[in-house]
Amino acid sequence: MTSPSDLLAARFQAVAAATEQRLIEALADAPLEGERTRPSHLMAAMRHGSLDGGKRLRPLLVVESAALFGVPLARAITAAAALECVHCYSLIHDDLPAMDNDLLRRGRPTVHVAFGEETAILAGDGLLTLAFDLLAGEDAHPDAQVRIALVRLLARASGIGGMVGGQMLDLAAEGRFSGGTPQALSEADIRTLQAMKTGALLRAGVEMGALLGGADAEARAALAAYGTALGVAFQIADDILDIEGDAAALGKSVGKDAQAGKATLVSALGMERARALLADLVAEAGGALAPFGAQGAVLAEVARFVATRQN
Amino acid sequence: MTSPSDLLAARFQAVAAATEQRLIEALADAPLEGERTRPSHLMAAMRHGSLDGGKRLRPLLVVESAALFGVPLARAITAAAALECVHCYSLIHDDLPAMDNDLLRRGRPTVHVAFGEETAILAGDGLLTLAFDLLAGEDAHPDAQVRIALVRLLARASGIGGMVGGQMLDLAAEGRFSGGTPQALSEADIRTLQAMKTGALLRAGVEMGALLGGADAEARAALAAYGTALGVAFQIADDILDIEGDAAALGKSVGKDAQAGKATLVSALGMERARALLADLVAEAGGALAPFGAQGAVLAEVARFVATRQN
Repeated sequence: MTSPSDLLAARFQAVAAATEQRLIEALADAPLEGERTRPSHLMAAMRHGSLDGGKRLRPLLVVESAALFGVPLARAITAAAALECVHCYSLIHDDLPAMDNDLLRRGRPTVHVAFGEETAILAGDGLLTLAFDLLAGEDAHPDAQVRIALVRLLARASGIGGMVGGQMLDLAAEGRFSGGTPQALSEADIRTLQAMKTGALLRAGVEMGALLGGADAEARAALAAYGTALGVAFQIADDILDIEGDAAALGKSVGKDAQAGKATLVSALGMERARALLADLVAEAGGALAPFGAQGAVLAEVARFVATRQN
Repeated sequence: MTSPSDLLAARFQAVAAATEQRLIEALADAPLEGERTRPSHLMAAMRHGSLDGGKRLRPLLVVESAALFGVPLARAITAAAALECVHCYSLIHDDLPAMDNDLLRRGRPTVHVAFGEETAILAGDGLLTLAFDLLAGEDAHPDAQVRIALVRLLARASGIGGMVGGQMLDLAAEGRFSGGTPQALSEADIRTLQAMKTGALLRAGVEMGALLGGADAEARAALAAYGTALGVAFQIADDILDIEGDAAALGKSVGKDAQAGKATLVSALGMERARALLADLVAEAGGALAPFGAQGAVLAEVARFVATRQN
């Protein structure tokens, strides 16, 4: 019998390959209807910032959530690729000199290092725009009602009151904008910031899967609860990795949070309580999947994976 | 009898007021469904970069094109505001130090000067995302098919093969990215660059109006032809203003193109031929409106206005 973690590894591999393929298609050089030309320097920067990258966790969440309702991978992959475009654009912009000024990402030079700052800004803008272009196509879903619901969901999760707002709160907490001074954040403040900065897109992944699958309100709420718990777990695991992780395995520098005096749930709760909370969140995420019975096994394993990953 | 230019002035005023109102609503502090909080520093920056600004030419194009099919202003204003969000985000990002490094816009400090560079990047990202959020709502259009068509149209016009790509070509032409050297552009290159950088959004305005109005293929093609001619006319007028315009009236510095050695149709054709082309384009734009008879008068006047504006 295949173990849950072997099964998940196979799913990660299948989704990553399909996501890569869909992004390669979307980032082809040939202009589409309504486009004039696709400048090669821009396309190269967009590919650098989105291809051959990461575990494709967000696409996996879309695909596996949609699979709960019988939607095959091929029918979920365009929406999954759209979500990944948003994730990749956010990394490109967050890495900019005016933001986190990161030089390495996944062991490679960041987009602004490799292509110039102005190109990195445009590559991020292009990927964000492309995400909505992808959702507007019939291969995202045959029903326009579902496609427009995906647009609304992704816009809310990634915009002012979601990811972009979360990055703003993060910069504010570090006292990073004009005249700002570092702020002491309460545990509630940290949770809000993280729910927006990283949680919103993870949760959007499962909610997009629910939309693709035509989930009823109950199933959608169950997946949203799972996604919320997963988001918090992901961030705690990330914060622990920043303290205990191995820079080589991570492909990025560690110890940055402590250096920046950054407030995390680990710094607020202490390592021991943070680990206990992480375990609780994995259980909570698994519990939220109860309505799906045995079919929820892959997503439950995703929560365990997220909590224990080493990179 | 009201003269065409008085009529147009009244239309500009009505559309600008309605656009302002719709943007104020969209940029309210209260989070919407699916959002958590809206950080005040970010909201202030987004308002600075989008409210009380400009002539609202793009919203006017949406509203007046939709009006050809009997769509009232109130039913067109959400899509118009979405288009304006994209325009405003592009100004914020283009003004950044890594791009054009502009300090003044409409006589006020640019967003990065007033709020910091990191906030300006996020404010632009937020406005772009908000544009698609606006198009996803039922107040943009009651029919999901139309809303998703608006998303597709706006994404193509503003993305890789449209506005973002045009800005990339513009930076490349100036030799502004790593290792680049200024390029000598042919007239055809200049036309492509400008059609993407500024033409695409202007044309999108009339095409969005056509979608809102349920235009048939013929009417949509007529408006697209109008929009294409208008876009070229707009840019030539802009290039002439950069040479002959008054900085105070424009609210921005002039002579920047010549200083940057920038290739424009005016530099390629010479002032006299550029003026003749401008007159031809106004006639061409007016001619494209023939199928709409007397109803096309406002849009024809827009073309004259664009060609002769002093700011």
